[in-house]
Amino acid sequence: MSTTVIDQIHRHASVRDYTDAPISRETVESIISAGQRAATSSNMQAFAVIAVIDPETKSAVAHLCGDQRHIVAAPVFLAWCADLSKLDRAGELRGLPRHHEYVENFLVAAVDAVLAAQNATLAAESLGLGTCYIGGIRNDPLGIVDLLHLPKLMFPITGMTLGWPRKPGTRRPRLPIEGVLHWDHYEAARVDTALLKYDQEMAATGIYNHRQVPAPGRSGQMEEYSWLEHSARRIAQPARAGLREALHEQGFMLE
Amino acid sequence: MSTTVIDQIHRHASVRDYTDAPISRETVESIISAGQRAATSSNMQAFAVIAVIDPETKSAVAHLCGDQRHIVAAPVFLAWCADLSKLDRAGELRGLPRHHEYVENFLVAAVDAVLAAQNATLAAESLGLGTCYIGGIRNDPLGIVDLLHLPKLMFPITGMTLGWPRKPGTRRPRLPIEGVLHWDHYEAARVDTALLKYDQEMAATGIYNHRQVPAPGRSGQMEEYSWLEHSARRIAQPARAGLREALHEQGFMLE
Repeated sequence: MSTTVIDQIHRHASVRDYTDAPISRETVESIISAGQRAATSSNMQAFAVIAVIDPETKSAVAHLCGDQRHIVAAPVFLAWCADLSKLDRAGELRGLPRHHEYVENFLVAAVDAVLAAQNATLAAESLGLGTCYIGGIRNDPLGIVDLLHLPKLMFPITGMTLGWPRKPGTRRPRLPIEGVLHWDHYEAARVDTALLKYDQEMAATGIYNHRQVPAPGRSGQMEEYSWLEHSARRIAQPARAGLREALHEQGFMLE
Repeated sequence: MSTTVIDQIHRHASVRDYTDAPISRETVESIISAGQRAATSSNMQAFAVIAVIDPETKSAVAHLCGDQRHIVAAPVFLAWCADLSKLDRAGELRGLPRHHEYVENFLVAAVDAVLAAQNATLAAESLGLGTCYIGGIRNDPLGIVDLLHLPKLMFPITGMTLGWPRKPGTRRPRLPIEGVLHWDHYEAARVDTALLKYDQEMAATGIYNHRQVPAPGRSGQMEEYSWLEHSARRIAQPARAGLREALHEQGFMLE
């Protein structure tokens, strides 16, 4: 019995400020190898990762992800991809029909990619490295496909920067456990209490204070701005409306 | 610098055989709390988990997941769900419009759920518990929705059994790292070599030997059966074709 792993998990905070120190290929391989040990649906291992270390390619990635400076600063960028292409190849080699057109096919591959990514994150953090997930990899997924030469049936799910921390990240409080955990059945009242309590707690941290601007379409008055408002604004906007078309283009039909 | 976390990660094997010993609520909470520390897109924490401990409910879950006996045997079943319902509530409380109709909305929530699930897995394993991911939770997702009272905008992504191992799981070799890791650009040739090498390696383990039966539509002869054939057969069948409709029913339109 060991609590070391749990301690490591609780220390997590995303790191966006890195030193210039490089990361050896062996270290990256050891991190990806840890990623591979995660569970994978029917051992299909339906994911792949592109480790971008070439500065020019990495700058292009940063641009496609919304010009995030920490992607340029980090010595390594990992593009975690759903990958049905190798299963398609297996089907081709064995002469069997191949299905990839269902939502389930995409979901299995996306889940495999994320399971591996989170194992890799903890492995990296345990070595003293800092990481930051980059959802911006889905801003222009076909741009990423072109840049990294991804074949059909491969799709970027999440990016990740990897580097030696210059400054530790801000560790944010999470929702009270009642906000995410239910016993036997979902209970809405439990969640409402948790959301309101958390909103107060986050207001006290000041983490969201720099964004005290009126929401689009609201009157100009300043208003209370904490987690509820932050999250409400995130879903008030259409989210990456081109994603479905890009998935189709890569062969994920989501039927 | 610690290698304890990486060692723990490398010991992973899914466990399907459990003792009768219970797991305290405090232990489950500590595992879910570790799950909460995983990264989450814009701190939205768009996941929830239902811990099923009531034997009758758990039996019903096991039936919906394809009558898997280890779900009945495990003292706890965790249903990891994508959850946009609490963000929808945030939008309602703050009086802003709410979007959930895009693939991106679903993907963000599914990714959050899986990141948390994998942290929880490692936390559980570090306490000596065994886990097994249950993709079968997507066999009849609306059955799960009814049983666990999941509201609209919540959807089961993966299940997980949790219990004290009676027998350790089988630790399966993974693809050579060349099968999943590329530098700067994807290289198809690298993958082909890895697949063939791995197929031989897995043949030697005998893990797939018990399934030496002819594939549907093939002649009756026995044939070499290893990872390639195993994986090819998995994608030779339509995969959970009702999933899209179930997602629509729950409010995930995947536009």
